[in-house]
Amino acid sequence: MIDLRSDTVTRPTEAMRAAMARAEVGDDVYGEDPTVAALQDRVAELFGHEAALFMPTGSMANVLAVRSVVAPGQEVLCEASAHIARAELGAHGAYSGVTMRTWIHPRGQVDLAMIQGIFAPEMGPFFVRTAAISVENTHNFAGGAVLPLADLRDLRDYATGVGAAIHLDGARIWNAHVATGTPLAEYGAVADVMAVCLSKGLGAPVGSLLVGSRDTVDEARVWRKRMGGGMRQVGILAAAGLHALDHHVERLADDHAHARLLAEACGVDPAGVDTNIVVVPRGDAAEFVARAADEGVRVATVGPTVVRLVTHLDITRDDAERAAKVLAGLV
Amino acid sequence: MIDLRSDTVTRPTEAMRAAMARAEVGDDVYGEDPTVAALQDRVAELFGHEAALFMPTGSMANVLAVRSVVAPGQEVLCEASAHIARAELGAHGAYSGVTMRTWIHPRGQVDLAMIQGIFAPEMGPFFVRTAAISVENTHNFAGGAVLPLADLRDLRDYATGVGAAIHLDGARIWNAHVATGTPLAEYGAVADVMAVCLSKGLGAPVGSLLVGSRDTVDEARVWRKRMGGGMRQVGILAAAGLHALDHHVERLADDHAHARLLAEACGVDPAGVDTNIVVVPRGDAAEFVARAADEGVRVATVGPTVVRLVTHLDITRDDAERAAKVLAGLV
Amino acid sequence: MIDLRSDTVTRPTEAMRAAMARAEVGDDVYGEDPTVAALQDRVAELFGHEAALFMPTGSMANVLAVRSVVAPGQEVLCEASAHIARAELGAHGAYSGVTMRTWIHPRGQVDLAMIQGIFAPEMGPFFVRTAAISVENTHNFAGGAVLPLADLRDLRDYATGVGAAIHLDGARIWNAHVATGTPLAEYGAVADVMAVCLSKGLGAPVGSLLVGSRDTVDEARVWRKRMGGGMRQVGILAAAGLHALDHHVERLADDHAHARLLAEACGVDPAGVDTNIVVVPRGDAAEFVARAADEGVRVATVGPTVVRLVTHLDITRDDAERAAKVLAGLV
Amino acid sequence: MIDLRSDTVTRPTEAMRAAMARAEVGDDVYGEDPTVAALQDRVAELFGHEAALFMPTGSMANVLAVRSVVAPGQEVLCEASAHIARAELGAHGAYSGVTMRTWIHPRGQVDLAMIQGIFAPEMGPFFVRTAAISVENTHNFAGGAVLPLADLRDLRDYATGVGAAIHLDGARIWNAHVATGTPLAEYGAVADVMAVCLSKGLGAPVGSLLVGSRDTVDEARVWRKRMGGGMRQVGILAAAGLHALDHHVERLADDHAHARLLAEACGVDPAGVDTNIVVVPRGDAAEFVARAADEGVRVATVGPTVVRLVTHLDITRDDAERAAKVLAGLV
Repeated sequence: MIDLRSDTVTRPTEAMRAAMARAEVGDDVYGEDPTVAALQDRVAELFGHEAALFMPTGSMANVLAVRSVVAPGQEVLCEASAHIARAELGAHGAYSGVTMRTWIHPRGQVDLAMIQGIFAPEMGPFFVRTAAISVENTHNFAGGAVLPLADLRDLRDYATGVGAAIHLDGARIWNAHVATGTPLAEYGAVADVMAVCLSKGLGAPVGSLLVGSRDTVDEARVWRKRMGGGMRQVGILAAAGLHALDHHVERLADDHAHARLLAEACGVDPAGVDTNIVVVPRGDAAEFVARAADEGVRVATVGPTVVRLVTHLDITRDDAERAAKVLAGLV
Repeated sequence: MIDLRSDTVTRPTEAMRAAMARAEVGDDVYGEDPTVAALQDRVAELFGHEAALFMPTGSMANVLAVRSVVAPGQEVLCEASAHIARAELGAHGAYSGVTMRTWIHPRGQVDLAMIQGIFAPEMGPFFVRTAAISVENTHNFAGGAVLPLADLRDLRDYATGVGAAIHLDGARIWNAHVATGTPLAEYGAVADVMAVCLSKGLGAPVGSLLVGSRDTVDEARVWRKRMGGGMRQVGILAAAGLHALDHHVERLADDHAHARLLAEACGVDPAGVDTNIVVVPRGDAAEFVARAADEGVRVATVGPTVVRLVTHLDITRDDAERAAKVLAGLV
Repeated sequence: MIDLRSDTVTRPTEAMRAAMARAEVGDDVYGEDPTVAALQDRVAELFGHEAALFMPTGSMANVLAVRSVVAPGQEVLCEASAHIARAELGAHGAYSGVTMRTWIHPRGQVDLAMIQGIFAPEMGPFFVRTAAISVENTHNFAGGAVLPLADLRDLRDYATGVGAAIHLDGARIWNAHVATGTPLAEYGAVADVMAVCLSKGLGAPVGSLLVGSRDTVDEARVWRKRMGGGMRQVGILAAAGLHALDHHVERLADDHAHARLLAEACGVDPAGVDTNIVVVPRGDAAEFVARAADEGVRVATVGPTVVRLVTHLDITRDDAERAAKVLAGLV
Repeated sequence: MIDLRSDTVTRPTEAMRAAMARAEVGDDVYGEDPTVAALQDRVAELFGHEAALFMPTGSMANVLAVRSVVAPGQEVLCEASAHIARAELGAHGAYSGVTMRTWIHPRGQVDLAMIQGIFAPEMGPFFVRTAAISVENTHNFAGGAVLPLADLRDLRDYATGVGAAIHLDGARIWNAHVATGTPLAEYGAVADVMAVCLSKGLGAPVGSLLVGSRDTVDEARVWRKRMGGGMRQVGILAAAGLHALDHHVERLADDHAHARLLAEACGVDPAGVDTNIVVVPRGDAAEFVARAADEGVRVATVGPTVVRLVTHLDITRDDAERAAKVLAGLV
């Protein structure tokens, strides 16, 4: 089986397993796990922020990142197909009491005119206030689309002017970095608070980080405990993250090349495939998934008429070529 | 002072006060207030629903109406400037744990293509599900715009097909009814649950109702108590509502005429003024408000560059003409 | 029918109706209702606090009072049968995200040793912190028991020493005041924030107030709007409250006398009846209620084996005597 | 340093690390991790329940277990120093909207008379309903006290009779099992839903499980995702849990012996030390902790006047003897 459902399905490599097995650990609820501390420091530095905090999942990282800048009863703006809007089971409302309004862009991009149109400034005690604007880079449900740095900088200027924070869902920021050559710190500079993930393209089994100021991270540590995310000797997992940062970033270029190859096979213009995700419009999405599976290729639906293919660490060049052949046959 | 800030500023008439003073009352927490019961039955019947429930405010009516069809962790879709999104202080997230996504329409209208584009069906345990679509008729921040019945019926068909409920924020449904001649029951027929308000155009001092099925109302009664809305001898207020239904519905046509007159004075095309609200784009909104006040006309801002004028029961033809003159002078 | 189920069942007197009918009103969401303002100022002054805020119900007053001193994730301590614990449908958890621990006292009293035993000081980011201690005076489910001022003062000293706030549920503080002669301001002095009710012993149809500092009230105003309690020309109801303060406080002594008379009839020691509530232990509570109703006396159960009788403004001496006769016959 | 602060500080053994390093894994969000599945099946079977679900922490396991039996606005009863009340940062209120009332027992025991006294049956739409009773076995803040099976069975009978669920916080149920010889399934039989922990006495680095019916677990899986606990190749951690079940259960008897030895050294009656926790009342708690640390023994405060010592996998007989000597010197 060639598994293209998601880049979350990767299994740790032998070298990564070895790194986990020898990790030095401590009780991280007490802040005593040296491997977690090393990972946190390294990730904070990569993005030019003061601090970072290990999280069991990207969802928790996003929930706690958004709540750090949006109080209960305030709102965050995001694109309508953002992961925080579609794929976190409504946690921002259910657990943080924040509400959302959305702009709509077929490629998940920043649309500053639309954002300005719906932005709600402080208007006295009758109106919801927009406390933050959230962007996702790369944008999962828009097919791994990159958000250009210039757009993010324009948004940063606008947000600063109107007194709003920026949350960056950087679950796949590594892919944006490799696809464009933009330094990670440049992305970090546009955000007040970020979430980044180790268990997608980077291939770690578990783990995400919230990245922000020292105060934000100190407060997030308490909320992480409240939310049930305060794990103990979690350096075991952090070690996988450190290994991934050493060995699995630059190779994302291979995933991107494989994705373009698959796009072509599915009749999708590879010029629209920025990174490792290919979105294939199919009226027969569910059936297409079943037929691909019959021929040894697992793909997923992310909407009733949308099939998604994702390349990752466990997909070799050879796998990609074989899958392309199968999918071309089905299309 | 001629007060055009909102149709919420009306004071009860002498006749309405007399009706309140002689209202028969009981403890409505125990369901024993005959005047409340009469009002609830009458409003339910007007909209062709099984039951209705008196509420202290339109905000509580909307919050409990939406929660009756959207569970914590699910979402409601609405237009980006809907009252539930902008003017209820995030209560749907903060108190009901529901989340929102929005489509954008400059006149607050149903845009079925956009709604279809963002609608999230049941897709398994990873994705938020759209449980309801909310519409507001007339639409306050779109300048009292009417939503055509044909559009609402198309939305009803769509929603039924995809298994979503429809919430109708009918705070000013009376204005839509009078402006178009559409029977109230026709509006009621497109909604699973509604909120209607007595203290805006109808001129009652306090009160809204949630309208829906018997089960919805029975459950909402418990949540109203939990939310602190279970009042005792509230027939005093319900009597004002009954009086308003008898005497203040048809006269809304006057408010609409006055609004068109004010629009013209402000250089706004009266053809775009469906009911009793005039939205005037002004770069100098705050200053405009201050200058109007200096000349005896109170108007409000509902955004940094938007002035709003609202006509109502306490604005006579003469008031409207005098205000028009003042505003024309300022424009 | 003689209705002893609750002191919430009173109907407004003719004089009170007249006061409501002539009340000067304005839009209280904009802070422009003079009658509401007058009531708020008067109540604040009675209790020696800076400000007060009108609320549709005692439940909302308690919920917003507690949230003003207890953040989400913190806790309030109260006696196990307190109204905030038993009779507000879990709103403090469901809507404010606060949690509770309870001490147990058969008469609902302050038990400082028990409170000290469970009090949780700030202990670092792993433990819930006790942010407030709540007391109820008089205590409804303990049979209208008065909390002695000396005990409240000891609690005040303790709470101040450990950095906790005191919330006073004073729904029936008027009864405590009349029963003991303690000035209302003395009760006010022991609390950081209070809730007081107009629609129980005082006989107004609707209304409670939150009482506290100016900052607390300013913030509570926003949360009241969020919670759906921001009513418009609510001076109609405030006028009833002002009338009740003028005419219905001192007469509570009659209710207390009637309650002792009923207690005696039911075989309950009248020395244990501090105010207007009589709690009668009955293994056959539901049946007792039914039998009393058959003979023209309505009483209520507040637990499977507890019958409650409450005297109030609508119970005359003659009513009390007739009811006593009926109940004595049943006992 | 001899670390007696908590049994959460244990580091994985070499054999446990080896088990993790070779674990077969898959994407557990998709339910495809065979090691997680094996652990879940095994734990469910141990307790005689249908299913179990891996969780990042005991806090999340408790929060989702309680919410599975207590709806928002309902309440759970527990002892006042229960972990769910004191040490989960108010998550049950803040995240699940449930409220609590507590009975008080110095040893954290079931006190059926007190529970009956505060239990709130379904009493109509005005009162909170007690949906569940929670017990903790062993009881952490009561010094690792065991709850006798007979008491749990009496509670089970009572709860069944009144229609309430039982939640068992079994973070240290393994210690109760070893201390008393009671089979785990006997404990499982008294509970509707349980939480058990792998990272305390059992010595795994991370991990807890919720244990209950198939339906409960299916629903908890969705809420775990919403709460940010849906991890991917988490079989790495589950492997540690399986290893711990094979090798670290019976040896808890050593921890218990060590605890009694420490108790004696601290002047605490070892007869009151049921398992691996020793609670030492010290007016000078903070100072005592500092002085012990100066001599190479780390202990913790769990209250302003309470010191806690906990024995665990990383404390050898020799460690225990050396610590006893140090502590005896300080006492």
